[in-house]
Amino acid sequence: MKIFLAQQNYHIGNFEDNTAKIIDAVKEAKANCGDLIIFSELAVCGYPPRDFLEFNDFIEQSIASVKAIAKEAVGIGVIVGGPSRNPKVEGKDLFNSAYFLYDGEIKQVFNKTLLPNYDIFDEYRYFEPATEHELLEFKGKKLAITICEDIWNLGDNPLYRVCPMDILIERSPDLIINISASPFDYAQAEERLGIVKRNVDKYGIPLIYCNAVGSQTEIVFDGGSVVMDAEQNLVAELPYFREALSFVELNENNTFKQPVIRPAKNIPYADPMPKDFDSWLDIHEVYDALVMGIRDYFNKMGFKKAIVASSGGIDSAVTLALACYALGPENVTALLMPSQFSTGHSVSDAEQLSKNLNNPYETIAIESIYQAFDNSLEPVFKDLPFNVAEENLQSRIRGTLVMAMANKFGYILLNTSNKSELSTGYGTLYGDMAGGLGVLGDVYKMQVYALAKYINRNEEVIPVHIIDKAPSAELRHDQKDSDSLPEYNVLDPILYQYIERRQGPKDIIAMGFDEALVRRILRLVNINEYKRNQFCPIIRVSPKAFGVGRRVPIVGKYLS
Amino acid sequence: MKIFLAQQNYHIGNFEDNTAKIIDAVKEAKANCGDLIIFSELAVCGYPPRDFLEFNDFIEQSIASVKAIAKEAVGIGVIVGGPSRNPKVEGKDLFNSAYFLYDGEIKQVFNKTLLPNYDIFDEYRYFEPATEHELLEFKGKKLAITICEDIWNLGDNPLYRVCPMDILIERSPDLIINISASPFDYAQAEERLGIVKRNVDKYGIPLIYCNAVGSQTEIVFDGGSVVMDAEQNLVAELPYFREALSFVELNENNTFKQPVIRPAKNIPYADPMPKDFDSWLDIHEVYDALVMGIRDYFNKMGFKKAIVASSGGIDSAVTLALACYALGPENVTALLMPSQFSTGHSVSDAEQLSKNLNNPYETIAIESIYQAFDNSLEPVFKDLPFNVAEENLQSRIRGTLVMAMANKFGYILLNTSNKSELSTGYGTLYGDMAGGLGVLGDVYKMQVYALAKYINRNEEVIPVHIIDKAPSAELRHDQKDSDSLPEYNVLDPILYQYIERRQGPKDIIAMGFDEALVRRILRLVNINEYKRNQFCPIIRVSPKAFGVGRRVPIVGKYLS
Repeated sequence: MKIFLAQQNYHIGNFEDNTAKIIDAVKEAKANCGDLIIFSELAVCGYPPRDFLEFNDFIEQSIASVKAIAKEAVGIGVIVGGPSRNPKVEGKDLFNSAYFLYDGEIKQVFNKTLLPNYDIFDEYRYFEPATEHELLEFKGKKLAITICEDIWNLGDNPLYRVCPMDILIERSPDLIINISASPFDYAQAEERLGIVKRNVDKYGIPLIYCNAVGSQTEIVFDGGSVVMDAEQNLVAELPYFREALSFVELNENNTFKQPVIRPAKNIPYADPMPKDFDSWLDIHEVYDALVMGIRDYFNKMGFKKAIVASSGGIDSAVTLALACYALGPENVTALLMPSQFSTGHSVSDAEQLSKNLNNPYETIAIESIYQAFDNSLEPVFKDLPFNVAEENLQSRIRGTLVMAMANKFGYILLNTSNKSELSTGYGTLYGDMAGGLGVLGDVYKMQVYALAKYINRNEEVIPVHIIDKAPSAELRHDQKDSDSLPEYNVLDPILYQYIERRQGPKDIIAMGFDEALVRRILRLVNINEYKRNQFCPIIRVSPKAFGVGRRVPIVGKYLS
Repeated sequence: MKIFLAQQNYHIGNFEDNTAKIIDAVKEAKANCGDLIIFSELAVCGYPPRDFLEFNDFIEQSIASVKAIAKEAVGIGVIVGGPSRNPKVEGKDLFNSAYFLYDGEIKQVFNKTLLPNYDIFDEYRYFEPATEHELLEFKGKKLAITICEDIWNLGDNPLYRVCPMDILIERSPDLIINISASPFDYAQAEERLGIVKRNVDKYGIPLIYCNAVGSQTEIVFDGGSVVMDAEQNLVAELPYFREALSFVELNENNTFKQPVIRPAKNIPYADPMPKDFDSWLDIHEVYDALVMGIRDYFNKMGFKKAIVASSGGIDSAVTLALACYALGPENVTALLMPSQFSTGHSVSDAEQLSKNLNNPYETIAIESIYQAFDNSLEPVFKDLPFNVAEENLQSRIRGTLVMAMANKFGYILLNTSNKSELSTGYGTLYGDMAGGLGVLGDVYKMQVYALAKYINRNEEVIPVHIIDKAPSAELRHDQKDSDSLPEYNVLDPILYQYIERRQGPKDIIAMGFDEALVRRILRLVNINEYKRNQFCPIIRVSPKAFGVGRRVPIVGKYLS
């Protein structure tokens, strides 16, 4: 049996494009003598559709897409993800389903049993869990059809009380098929291979895992679909961060015609969730995810050109470089906005950066505008001393200028705030926190340095002076980040324990961090929730990004 | 049996204050010979605790609070809501529980079966549903303990496959007790009484319903706890929008000593979800909810003083009036920021408003600042015509000025955008969309007028000229909202059908609205999701507010 895996990049709610893309792959598989082709979870409508699922019209369009694809399923079987209606009155009205299409029609519908409802996932908001489980019998093979989370309920403290493969295995399937929309984070690619291996180990049959690829606002899907034989060897591994159509041939005895490309011993087994801040970083994956995150956001929103406020600091330098790689340097404008507090090298470093990247830049000094505000505010402020109000004012003047440029020329402002700043509230709402997409909002400062070095791996794209100088917001004379915050190599590991690993103050102090410092930092994180609440979507690269996957009360009085 | 209901206002994560408040009520009930006292859902930690529940430390503190309260439960039984740990390894690690405390200890724990996971609710994100059901036997009575949603699974299309009261009723309870944290919306108070009645009707026994009160960021809990006898008469109804401690006395035969205060025939039965835009509005409830929403946000965040950008328009006038009622006029500063496009009456109306309200105001003209921006941008903008960039620039200058005032004097900026504007994207990010709390973000423009009239019910607080003039953003000469948007009496009902009632384009057109207009408006709603995504929390008064309860993809291509 020749089985195709279609790893595709869908656009949520864009039924026309998604359906056309799926049908193209069906035709290509058919032309290449495929027996079966597999698409990812909720492929027809894109994942995650969120509250669009509450619109009857949206469900109708999803089902119409499935039917249009079914018309092409002649001489080839198609497994494709989409929502389906729950025929029972009890329970939620929808299932998250895998449709089996053949002979031009919908032959069978398999529903997802385990509905993830943590981090960025809200599936129980929309879907009823399946309670009935059947195999798909096709061309003499018995296939166990599962959907994403359905194969994840292993381990010592399982999240769900049932395990659908435990039920399906009783019926002696030849093969597990899993259609997924499993998002990237820096730990996930490893973890996912580990789970595939664990299922093969537990059930003793091969597994075909077909994932989505592409970015949907903040969520990055990295692809990496795989086929594993019953001996736990990989016989196919589709690329990461791009679309692909590939196939395997299943023999009579459920081995594959394809050679082993990665033997069992090179594949992780258990969840590799790291415990230390430094132990994980596969920086080139993070880089790829950020570039795809920018590119897909622009493509899917119909945008072409970006603008970045280029300060001569490392965050804006890395953001600008990533944007140039994602969109082409001709489509990325840098705006330099020096003030009386800017050091000379800020401007020259930013200019050199844009020369290296070959992207256009403009310079608008903010001093005269600042003076106009100062004059207008003087009757009210009188002789009150310079403080955070004037610091924020400079940042907001820059925000207003760069948005004026964006509005005038149709640019989208890319935000440059990093995760360390957003965690501690070290940023100005409507100032440097402005923007349509947060490029580095899930990247701690220490990781921004790692990205800068990765970007410079072949040549000096980012001037080394930008990497080497002490971080500063330059909102008053001789200001340094370290005036207000601990050094980033101390700050970041504490933030990581609190945010990614949900460790409480006692746990973190027990790791050897200074108690007063831990309490101060955790308090900063919690009292600044109101700022992050107004922040733009952040490209998610960690297992716990700010945004939809982290839901914290604003009026809460916890650790604050 | 003398049963006290404690309808209290908790603060999420503020264990010290919540515990003290609960213990005070226990002591008072005990001093007044109470046998039993009932508190609301998740009372010890406040509702909704959201991702604080992912911290082991937070659960430990919750359980420590329950134990501290148990020490006071001597000579009186206490039922109080809090999280508890799931002793089984399978399933999620927590339950949403009602603790029964007596003799100084935790005697029994009852877990919630039905976990709401729609709109603002995310309970399945944290909690395992109960599968075991027992009665509480206390002083010769058998009590069915339920938690909020547990009594809501009635009707023709129930959301859940099980109904815990159907199980508990088999054991012949004398009384249903329901502890809730059931948020206000303008339809909810009626709906809630209807559900209480329906349960009493179905199970034939009395019901005691104890709700939370108070606001948690955007979510308003309105109280209104009730006791209904088996004949479906109300024998107790606690106040709306404020704390209360009250009691009923249950006779041997499960009637109450208290007289009927509202007979069965005056209580709704079915869900009264309205179908028309105009049919629901109980404006004084919306007014009360908004005033409590502002007051609680300030109290719980530790803020005292607010600032409002006062334009002379109706939205800022209503916001300013509500803020003055919530915080006291001496704590609310109005900032007038006229431009060359402001009409003369804008300033005089805004001044008159503050004179009527007796709140301080300041005036800062923006023209010279605008000129400074214009000069600085001129080398880049050259002779490109005045357009949305310059309009937004004015709005952002105002946002920057009012935030400078806020930062300098410690004010919190209250946002004045209404739901019609937010729906259609008729507002400027970082300009008039700035602020810490959205006062009118869940109130359509037509409803803002109704609020203005309600505020003026006794005297002219809001100058009638503000109510009567045509709405305008005044960002260019002779601009009117109706240049870009349809009249609000046409716009608002379409938005209501789409947002509150989740009707699709075909459904709305079938109601008789113009097809091109419907498609244009729905498209505006969907393409402006990116703006709302950066908006502050909005006090929720409708069944579908923008914010945590409405989760829509930004890169989606649906109806857009």
